Amino acid sequence: MKMIDLNCDMGEAFGNYAMPNDEKLMDYISSANIACGFHAGDPAIMQQTVALAIKKGVAIGAHPGLPDLQGFGRREMKISPNEAYQLTLYQIGALSGFVKAAGSKLHHVKAHGALYNMAAKDIALAKAIVQAVFDFDPGLILYALAGSKMITEAEKYGLATASEVFADRSYQDDGLLTPRSADHALITNEADAVNQVLGFALKQEVKSVNGNRIAVKAETVCLHGDGEHAVEFAKLIANRLKKESIIIKAPAI
Amino acid sequence: MKMIDLNCDMGEAFGNYAMPNDEKLMDYISSANIACGFHAGDPAIMQQTVALAIKKGVAIGAHPGLPDLQGFGRREMKISPNEAYQLTLYQIGALSGFVKAAGSKLHHVKAHGALYNMAAKDIALAKAIVQAVFDFDPGLILYALAGSKMITEAEKYGLATASEVFADRSYQDDGLLTPRSADHALITNEADAVNQVLGFALKQEVKSVNGNRIAVKAETVCLHGDGEHAVEFAKLIANRLKKESIIIKAPAI
Amino acid sequence: MKMIDLNCDMGEAFGNYAMPNDEKLMDYISSANIACGFHAGDPAIMQQTVALAIKKGVAIGAHPGLPDLQGFGRREMKISPNEAYQLTLYQIGALSGFVKAAGSKLHHVKAHGALYNMAAKDIALAKAIVQAVFDFDPGLILYALAGSKMITEAEKYGLATASEVFADRSYQDDGLLTPRSADHALITNEADAVNQVLGFALKQEVKSVNGNRIAVKAETVCLHGDGEHAVEFAKLIANRLKKESIIIKAPAI
Amino acid sequence: MKMIDLNCDMGEAFGNYAMPNDEKLMDYISSANIACGFHAGDPAIMQQTVALAIKKGVAIGAHPGLPDLQGFGRREMKISPNEAYQLTLYQIGALSGFVKAAGSKLHHVKAHGALYNMAAKDIALAKAIVQAVFDFDPGLILYALAGSKMITEAEKYGLATASEVFADRSYQDDGLLTPRSADHALITNEADAVNQVLGFALKQEVKSVNGNRIAVKAETVCLHGDGEHAVEFAKLIANRLKKESIIIKAPAI
Repeated sequence: MKMIDLNCDMGEAFGNYAMPNDEKLMDYISSANIACGFHAGDPAIMQQTVALAIKKGVAIGAHPGLPDLQGFGRREMKISPNEAYQLTLYQIGALSGFVKAAGSKLHHVKAHGALYNMAAKDIALAKAIVQAVFDFDPGLILYALAGSKMITEAEKYGLATASEVFADRSYQDDGLLTPRSADHALITNEADAVNQVLGFALKQEVKSVNGNRIAVKAETVCLHGDGEHAVEFAKLIANRLKKESIIIKAPAI
Repeated sequence: MKMIDLNCDMGEAFGNYAMPNDEKLMDYISSANIACGFHAGDPAIMQQTVALAIKKGVAIGAHPGLPDLQGFGRREMKISPNEAYQLTLYQIGALSGFVKAAGSKLHHVKAHGALYNMAAKDIALAKAIVQAVFDFDPGLILYALAGSKMITEAEKYGLATASEVFADRSYQDDGLLTPRSADHALITNEADAVNQVLGFALKQEVKSVNGNRIAVKAETVCLHGDGEHAVEFAKLIANRLKKESIIIKAPAI
Repeated sequence: MKMIDLNCDMGEAFGNYAMPNDEKLMDYISSANIACGFHAGDPAIMQQTVALAIKKGVAIGAHPGLPDLQGFGRREMKISPNEAYQLTLYQIGALSGFVKAAGSKLHHVKAHGALYNMAAKDIALAKAIVQAVFDFDPGLILYALAGSKMITEAEKYGLATASEVFADRSYQDDGLLTPRSADHALITNEADAVNQVLGFALKQEVKSVNGNRIAVKAETVCLHGDGEHAVEFAKLIANRLKKESIIIKAPAI
Repeated sequence: MKMIDLNCDMGEAFGNYAMPNDEKLMDYISSANIACGFHAGDPAIMQQTVALAIKKGVAIGAHPGLPDLQGFGRREMKISPNEAYQLTLYQIGALSGFVKAAGSKLHHVKAHGALYNMAAKDIALAKAIVQAVFDFDPGLILYALAGSKMITEAEKYGLATASEVFADRSYQDDGLLTPRSADHALITNEADAVNQVLGFALKQEVKSVNGNRIAVKAETVCLHGDGEHAVEFAKLIANRLKKESIIIKAPAI
């Protein structure tokens, strides 16, 4: 039986600013990456989002980001590996407080935004984040960009990983994402995005921007939660996967 | 054998702003209440302070405060009990991340500043903070003002408590602290402060501002860490207690 | 010719969190109170909102709030009058930077949320805020709750004021707002709210919750910008005022 | 008559964290660059520091930095030129509020830390900062690294500049600072530092790390205010300059 994980960044509200899609999206995904108060999220949102994930049976992950609420954690900051270690550990701990109090268990960690992207390429940052996850709980799963330094560093620690692919981002012949600055970086046609997800789930491959079939390790598919059609699209993907008898399920810990 | 705990607020540095006394104070105290990033402290400071406490064999407590770095958590904020629960849980979790990663164990929780004072009198806030501590780990000890609502609420939950008294604050006939706004609120004479601590440790009593001997439950004595003579004073107290064969020791969990 | 000012809190977005009503609301109001980065708003939002107000010919006001983004400036904080002075001056200055750079002129100041409410009743806070406005520019107009301490303190300084009334809040026989905790505090029926605004504009009076006609000084009407129907309601009010030949116009400086 | 400006970063305290040197340093410098609340400083500190500068007759500059209090504005952030414009304008405005309220006039602007260093090399950032200063008040003086893009961009706008040199940093043969990562980047010998300042003031030249005399435009000398011996060193420099009949004076606006 084929199986794949659908993950989505959740709990990215803050104070007075709501993210109304969160509750609905929980019906279609298997993993929630919950913001921890640095790039988004606050203690109230974290508590609510953890409760929601538990209610819907969605695996709970910490989603640590850079300390930059205004930039939503998307602006690169020149932090040292030590600082990456510290801010990752802080945020995992903070989220795990809510998970523990709610009687559940933290399942995975996925870095957010610029931290995710920087650590995908920078070995020292990757190692620092992996070390933080490992030091907190070596039983956690690290979600990270397929083929990234994060994956290779995690493997060195014996940390379980889930290689992440994207429904709405195009891929190059080398198996890497087309940079956002390039044309065709985003897949805006829903049917194309659905087909890409099916290719991930059924064949562990993706059709590149040049039309070639490229092998890619696809264990968890990232759905974006903040667009207007995000909920409809998640529903569409989830239904299509079920139709193909692909089980939507978080990786076992 | 008489025994008392000496606690001190620690890790109240932030970023570029150092608290140079911390390392030295660790030699004389038995419990460190470590700031968690809301009123003071940051992930780097927290990691360092946890490491220091472990090295010195000092019991580690989380010291959650109001989200007000500029006001150092000393300005009252009208937060709801839910918000008190959430910010306490968040901060305990964050600190426990560092404690866990360092292979140690969180020992206690003590609220900071305005949160401490508000919850001493407000049952709903007291209950919320106690609930957060209990939900995180019912084996933790709550440090709180002797005779406060925090202590009575914690007892209702079956949570272990340590009643806190102050070396450098004077007491009224009713066993409560003289308000800071009043004359003689602070004990500035070192010998008087030392004698007050001895009274706590040896007889569980204090001489009030009116000269009466008042019974007070004294399980942990708060030493202030930020004054100029803080280190000398801690040394003085610690040496005097040892001379009286009083053991300086954190309450057992 | 009758004349009234319609004001609305604007620029309350932050970073990634949008406030999509702002642009549309600018078509119906005469005064914009622009958040200054403490309870909401950031330098990017402030620049954009100032540009929008200039384009639409709407008078620009600074809208200083408490330093509490998570609480949206709605949680009371026990700040000293000095702190109120300082945070008001800081925020007026920050907004005026954008206004000056855009070649326009700051028109008014209106405190936000808990700062507005605390200073309505607390003379020392009212005085501090008035002093900050006066020290920055004695030609500015202070928008404040009709009948509040802010108005009386401003008058002592010779600062121009605009007494504020609310379209969607009910009034008591004493001319004060029904507390939000009471029943009928909010007027949810649109026709009632429109009639209340007409009463303000045409007769300087309001029908109290007990059905009595109460005199009220009504120079500027606050419209809320964040509800779902906020834009429609603003349009409705604006059209109805025009139909009654009431000019919608910010007070002259 | 020879003349030079001595500038120092001031007001870098925050909330409970003091910078006790500030008051004493004001006796020896002619220009104060006052932090504006992003990398350091808060509304209370800003008000006090402005008052201090006025009392001591020191020229007041805004010292905008990146929004990173934990990193003290020293960690590079990938901000866009628009963001650089906005955060510079916000901070200049905020400080100018205090200056205006105190009846004085803003004299200059100097970017802080990573913002200063990034804009020294990056034309787009330099242009954005220069534009913000110019749009706020074209009569302000931009203090920036001698030979940097900031200086050349400011000159294109017709903005007055003061080329900044450092008392305690060594220079290379190309007239640029020795990178901090290199040996001998810092001049730790006080006599050497004093001689370097005399070279700047008397001959507009500096002895490079290779022993060569290099021409350098030296209009304002940066003294560091946060070291242990900062006050003594400032006094030493000031006294030595006076002895050489060099006037310590901020550039005229």
